Amino acid sequence: MITVDGKRLLDDLRTLATFGKVGTGVNRLSFSPEDRAARDWLCGRMREAGLEAAIDAVGNVYGRAPGTRRTVLLGSHTDTVPNGGWLDGALGVIYGLEIARRWLEVHPGGKTGVDAISFQDEESTYLACLGSRSFSGALSEAELAGARGPGGRPLTETLREAGYAGRLAARLDPARHVAYLEGHIEQGPRLEAEGCRIGVVTGIVGIRRHQVVFTGRADHAGTTPMDLRQDAGAALVDLAHELLGEFRKAAGPQSVWNLGNVVFAPGAANVVPAEARLTVEFRDTEPAVLDRFEAIVRACVERYDGRSRVRCAATRTLAISPAAMDARLGEVLRQAAARHDVAAMSLPSGAGHDAMVLAAHVPTAMLFVPSRGGRSHDVAEDTAEADIVLGANVLMTAVERLLTGE
Amino acid sequence: MITVDGKRLLDDLRTLATFGKVGTGVNRLSFSPEDRAARDWLCGRMREAGLEAAIDAVGNVYGRAPGTRRTVLLGSHTDTVPNGGWLDGALGVIYGLEIARRWLEVHPGGKTGVDAISFQDEESTYLACLGSRSFSGALSEAELAGARGPGGRPLTETLREAGYAGRLAARLDPARHVAYLEGHIEQGPRLEAEGCRIGVVTGIVGIRRHQVVFTGRADHAGTTPMDLRQDAGAALVDLAHELLGEFRKAAGPQSVWNLGNVVFAPGAANVVPAEARLTVEFRDTEPAVLDRFEAIVRACVERYDGRSRVRCAATRTLAISPAAMDARLGEVLRQAAARHDVAAMSLPSGAGHDAMVLAAHVPTAMLFVPSRGGRSHDVAEDTAEADIVLGANVLMTAVERLLTGE
Repeated sequence: MITVDGKRLLDDLRTLATFGKVGTGVNRLSFSPEDRAARDWLCGRMREAGLEAAIDAVGNVYGRAPGTRRTVLLGSHTDTVPNGGWLDGALGVIYGLEIARRWLEVHPGGKTGVDAISFQDEESTYLACLGSRSFSGALSEAELAGARGPGGRPLTETLREAGYAGRLAARLDPARHVAYLEGHIEQGPRLEAEGCRIGVVTGIVGIRRHQVVFTGRADHAGTTPMDLRQDAGAALVDLAHELLGEFRKAAGPQSVWNLGNVVFAPGAANVVPAEARLTVEFRDTEPAVLDRFEAIVRACVERYDGRSRVRCAATRTLAISPAAMDARLGEVLRQAAARHDVAAMSLPSGAGHDAMVLAAHVPTAMLFVPSRGGRSHDVAEDTAEADIVLGANVLMTAVERLLTGE
Repeated sequence: MITVDGKRLLDDLRTLATFGKVGTGVNRLSFSPEDRAARDWLCGRMREAGLEAAIDAVGNVYGRAPGTRRTVLLGSHTDTVPNGGWLDGALGVIYGLEIARRWLEVHPGGKTGVDAISFQDEESTYLACLGSRSFSGALSEAELAGARGPGGRPLTETLREAGYAGRLAARLDPARHVAYLEGHIEQGPRLEAEGCRIGVVTGIVGIRRHQVVFTGRADHAGTTPMDLRQDAGAALVDLAHELLGEFRKAAGPQSVWNLGNVVFAPGAANVVPAEARLTVEFRDTEPAVLDRFEAIVRACVERYDGRSRVRCAATRTLAISPAAMDARLGEVLRQAAARHDVAAMSLPSGAGHDAMVLAAHVPTAMLFVPSRGGRSHDVAEDTAEADIVLGANVLMTAVERLLTGE
């Protein structure tokens, strides 16, 4: 059973974290100078490991095992959210680098091997999962042309300036890639709460978002009697309260929902709110549960529209389908964990990942390691070093099994 | 029975509305160039009317009937809210000008008369009711020194720049001023709804405001199970819903309340709200009712504090005591209305006015005329010309009664 070089793995992770370092975290928005420098460094490390590596037309860093015909693809992303953590994405990318490198050390000149990749812009600075969508052939020219980033800057302009435009786009090859495996921090508290060191992802949740807008009338809150008001704010409070109660009743065992934002306008203490906006999001791995939640939103909005002369309307602003992970690969991961004397916990991923995009095109699985305190998208994000190394070894064992049957 | 010159009254009102004109409304923040030009114009009109007029140390425009020992003081304010209406404040000031002028025409050289005043900054650009508080001797040097306006500019600097600093401050004189009468638009829909053309104010409501702050924890809204969240937003929705129900039960016949603003932070669709802020305001003419509402806020906050590990705390950010109007003066106004064949409606004022300040020092009454559609603090603010003139005539008749007993 091959094991990774834990020190080398951690050293590479720590080095990657110096690009855009912010305290204990990282600020490395896709295509920023820090992000591009990190990509150049990663490409160099892949070459040093013996991979044929290059940065492609959208910024993906792709390292291929030389002389191979069948490979397992490992990766994730190296871009971050603003002031994010040092492991979100980076972990899976360095897992790919180390496992590909270790495989080449043990099996030099083999016909099978490991390809490693860092997908561009998973965090949606310009276009969510830009890299994995391009790699999977699931990105239209129109989307690419229409994408804009910070300050409304066109993606095409940014690609030109970065020197990526005009390069070849790396592509998934079903004849070559037998599986895609993504290691990632959980970004939630469940593994830690259960005392589990390895999670195997059953599926990535689907997400739907609605913007509910209440339109009333601004009136002087001192001089307008209660029964003559068209109070958009009070209507929002009543609907939101009802929504939370209904969601609780309709929830499946894994459902989550969030009223993430409320905005009142004009928002003054002495003015009856003329407009109120509520952001509603819910996630589940089951499309039927998502449909149930959506029906609740629509029914609530219909019931409230016109009540106290306040108009109420909802717009669906996001719909991402759930993505099931490959059951056979999940079993391989669980068995690999057992070979390291660890019982893996099965759990859904409540966050989106590049694996969500790949799953539609190639057998895909995800492995989670615990997040300290469940924290992520924050400089507080962290994972015990022992868990980081264990995750790499479980993936290494799974890769060995997939490539050699052992 | 003396009557006012309706055309002259309307002409002066229309001329005043040209200072800071914005469509059908007015933008005339206190101490702005438009406001200062309007004050200079008003001071000139007072002098043309035969009053001894001057602008005082804080910007009050005060016109005294020459040679008199006993006067009725009439006035209001000429500053406006941003993009406000043409009548809020201006009406009562031009009533004062016209009634003082008409009195001098009918009783030249009399020992009794009418003083007219435009108080500075009723609308709180620097310091709420600055002018009437200074005039009433209810303003400390420390408050004056600490007041700041747009962009944090000290009031003292603005007074210097306007050339007002160093002047005498006009003062209320209990031996001279037998009463303060303020005409004003209702700024609400009640007179119009009841088909009444004249309102007599019973009292000005007290106001209390609370800022309720919920402190939870920001977590990823996809990866954090519902039972592990500390959701400040959901806590706010539940408390606000309960508060609205309790307020409805505790309300007196004139009570009004408003949840004027809600702010969630960080306010992202996919992040559990870490903090949520709710602005609560309630108004009533009865201190006991205000106390009842306040007890509800405190009890709710106590019940919610710690629920689902979310902290909840409330801070009282404003407390203005109710101000009763002088009952005898109210009766004089009602009788004056009857002499014009109009039945006056008694109602509280839900908004604050300079009369609220004066009432603690001199017998005070307020007369309301209807606001079209109840609109105010908006360029849509308007009142029928016939109602404007009627209001002036009712006040004129009341003044005649107070000064001559007729």
